[in-house]
Amino acid sequence: MHPIFRGIRKLTPVQAIVSYYFLAIAISVGLLNLPGVHQQGVQVNFIDSLFTSVSAVSVTGLSVLNISETYTTFGIAMLMIILQLGGIGIMSLGTFVWLLIGKKIGLRERQLIMIDHNQHSLSGVVNLIIEIIRLLLLIELIGALLLTVYFTQFYDTFSEAFLQGLFASVSATTNGGFDITGESMIPYHNDYFVQIINMFLIILGAIGFPVLIEMKAFLSNKNKNFRFSLFTKITTLTFGILLLVGTVVILALEMFNSFREMSWHEAFFTALFHSVSSRSGGLVTFDITEFSQGTNVFMSALMFIGASPSSVGGGIRTTTFAIAILFLINFARGKNEIQIFNREIQLIDVFRSFAVIILAIFMVLFATIALSISEPTLSITAIVFEITSAFGTCGMSLGITSELSSFGKSLIMILMFVGRVGLISFLFTIGGRTTKTKYHYPKERVIIG
Amino acid sequence: MHPIFRGIRKLTPVQAIVSYYFLAIAISVGLLNLPGVHQQGVQVNFIDSLFTSVSAVSVTGLSVLNISETYTTFGIAMLMIILQLGGIGIMSLGTFVWLLIGKKIGLRERQLIMIDHNQHSLSGVVNLIIEIIRLLLLIELIGALLLTVYFTQFYDTFSEAFLQGLFASVSATTNGGFDITGESMIPYHNDYFVQIINMFLIILGAIGFPVLIEMKAFLSNKNKNFRFSLFTKITTLTFGILLLVGTVVILALEMFNSFREMSWHEAFFTALFHSVSSRSGGLVTFDITEFSQGTNVFMSALMFIGASPSSVGGGIRTTTFAIAILFLINFARGKNEIQIFNREIQLIDVFRSFAVIILAIFMVLFATIALSISEPTLSITAIVFEITSAFGTCGMSLGITSELSSFGKSLIMILMFVGRVGLISFLFTIGGRTTKTKYHYPKERVIIG
Ligand SMILES: [K+]
Ligand SMILES: [K+]
Repeated sequence: MHPIFRGIRKLTPVQAIVSYYFLAIAISVGLLNLPGVHQQGVQVNFIDSLFTSVSAVSVTGLSVLNISETYTTFGIAMLMIILQLGGIGIMSLGTFVWLLIGKKIGLRERQLIMIDHNQHSLSGVVNLIIEIIRLLLLIELIGALLLTVYFTQFYDTFSEAFLQGLFASVSATTNGGFDITGESMIPYHNDYFVQIINMFLIILGAIGFPVLIEMKAFLSNKNKNFRFSLFTKITTLTFGILLLVGTVVILALEMFNSFREMSWHEAFFTALFHSVSSRSGGLVTFDITEFSQGTNVFMSALMFIGASPSSVGGGIRTTTFAIAILFLINFARGKNEIQIFNREIQLIDVFRSFAVIILAIFMVLFATIALSISEPTLSITAIVFEITSAFGTCGMSLGITSELSSFGKSLIMILMFVGRVGLISFLFTIGGRTTKTKYHYPKERVIIG
Repeated sequence: MHPIFRGIRKLTPVQAIVSYYFLAIAISVGLLNLPGVHQQGVQVNFIDSLFTSVSAVSVTGLSVLNISETYTTFGIAMLMIILQLGGIGIMSLGTFVWLLIGKKIGLRERQLIMIDHNQHSLSGVVNLIIEIIRLLLLIELIGALLLTVYFTQFYDTFSEAFLQGLFASVSATTNGGFDITGESMIPYHNDYFVQIINMFLIILGAIGFPVLIEMKAFLSNKNKNFRFSLFTKITTLTFGILLLVGTVVILALEMFNSFREMSWHEAFFTALFHSVSSRSGGLVTFDITEFSQGTNVFMSALMFIGASPSSVGGGIRTTTFAIAILFLINFARGKNEIQIFNREIQLIDVFRSFAVIILAIFMVLFATIALSISEPTLSITAIVFEITSAFGTCGMSLGITSELSSFGKSLIMILMFVGRVGLISFLFTIGGRTTKTKYHYPKERVIIG
């Protein structure tokens, strides 16, 4: 066994992921302070530089500065590298950790990723990671090519079109959410082609690598006994339902408000795009401060849920949300077991979901109170939106990011970090080791209501 | 068996409680529209009359009108009767239902209320209910006497002092939260005697009848084998911790804000009183719109948690909150069983807590979005405060109640009703009947994060 492999294996998953992120953030701060990164005359102080690094590594996209006015083309190239470190890096590390955890808790990983039979070996793991990196780079490249060709009509030179196309594709696929247009995707508000490409890229990044790998296995049709894992079914269904509900609710809430002068297709695309984007993408095609407060609250809830586990997105994750809903439905029916897709959800996963949800709610509540004290002039709506956006590593903002105090920026950085690493990663290290209770007490009922 | 007893016994708990409330609301609307109830020249439209009835029966105290400027002394007497219907009525009914449920689910009610051995019999139940009513009327009477004697120094006539004292005592003990001063307890901002009496009365009403009965049994010292039930221990501890945390946090958040010109004891009492009041009391000694947004959010969270089960208060209830926290602590420690006070919490109670919390969060979220659409001029902070105040049947408000649209008033009425009946009552009817799953599917793990 290779010594690096053995060294990493000694780390708990959360240690591995946290170490990776600290390293990646340190590298990012370095890259963003190389000579030639900043445009002439632009000064970026340390906290803003750190904020940009954390935001890029966590592929959130909240930004305290205007990227296109701050960085040179070289700087933008560095930013793209950082997005890859964040987006693709975590996917690979995620796979790695999952396979290790799979072994540690005696779980056969074939249940999770049902394609390859030799994942127990180092070469199997390496092959899988190479496959993930190759797959995501391929997606980014296709996106970049399509957008570049299309953008040539808007830009004078091919290299300018290519820079725009490549950055847009990387930012969408890694769900980075940064923009070099200076106003996100608002210039493409009526350009459905660009929006569709972007939405596809965002979804491919946010749907989770097991889904991508299983889809590939399914399409390649090599394995006759192939079936989609329960995980893939649940996360894809939840993702789809969230997109649908998101679109319908935004449309309903804004129809007579900010959408009232739009054509039906314009309104539909605006609703759809922001529904997709609130999973984790963070790009906008519309000035979202024009949305009503109700829509802002609703989008905060969507961002809080976030994207699939083992994807580039954050939040409590789709499966956590799905299990909570499934639990509620089953409980209301008087059933003790959660059955779906001819499978039963294990009790420990139900417990994990609850732990994540309760912890996340406390975190958001605590952060809201803290920010409302440190930023007394900002509305609670904008604060909650910013917090859920950071925790969901989404990156949409009601425009308050650059106004935040240093304390506020630090808190948002922590939230981006926690959102990206995932509360469950912390709980996982614990969840694996079940302390056997040595003695039992008599059970006693408690009045709940 | 008495036919009424048999008839009520056929109802599920939620049917019994809901029926009681509908009846009580109907009676209240009748009482508040008797001739001589309104002051001369005052007109109250139907929705405001209904709102006042629902608010009084649910002992919430949110009010769309100024009580002292709307009702005559006779009207105020009617309001006090309605508060008794709401506060004491539900305590008695609660006992009754609990004893019935205890039997239905094969639970020995001695585990819940550990004093009387003949509760199986009708006379045992009736005795218990009479004891509750007697106990609460006694508390109200003592409160009224103390306040009346004290108030004689402020009012010209004894009858005026008695009216003020009696109403204040009834409003505090039933946690009704209404006032006839026109500005809640703000006139007593510096009167710690009145505040202490009121806090005692509020706590006695909100701590739950099993606690009161067990306390009485403990103090009377008749039963040598008496021990406090797990329920009483958990709910009292949680209640105490919430009071303490509430006081400390409000003090910390407002120390340099609205409290900055107060003396230490004034600041302490203001923080303490609103911490007590946010459990369910709803009275204020200070213009709470002067609190910072952060404090408002924090108080919303406190009101969302609410009071003890089987008390005059609402919300998700202290035990629900306590079990969620205990679960989180135990989960983080890697334990599967929740052990506390040398007892184990049953899995079904953990599930119930989760179901209540998730449902309550959805309800608050939905109501927030709905109200922010129907009342576009109001801030989300004020809306969330109003909603959690209604759901927690607390009755504090940032002053928006009377400004609400008819839709808004209706939604708040529903929330007060649901908060008072309790989500768990709905879930309880289901929770009792556990449908045996006929077939089992293989279990499969799902990635949570
Ligand atoms: K993002
Ligand atoms: K109240």
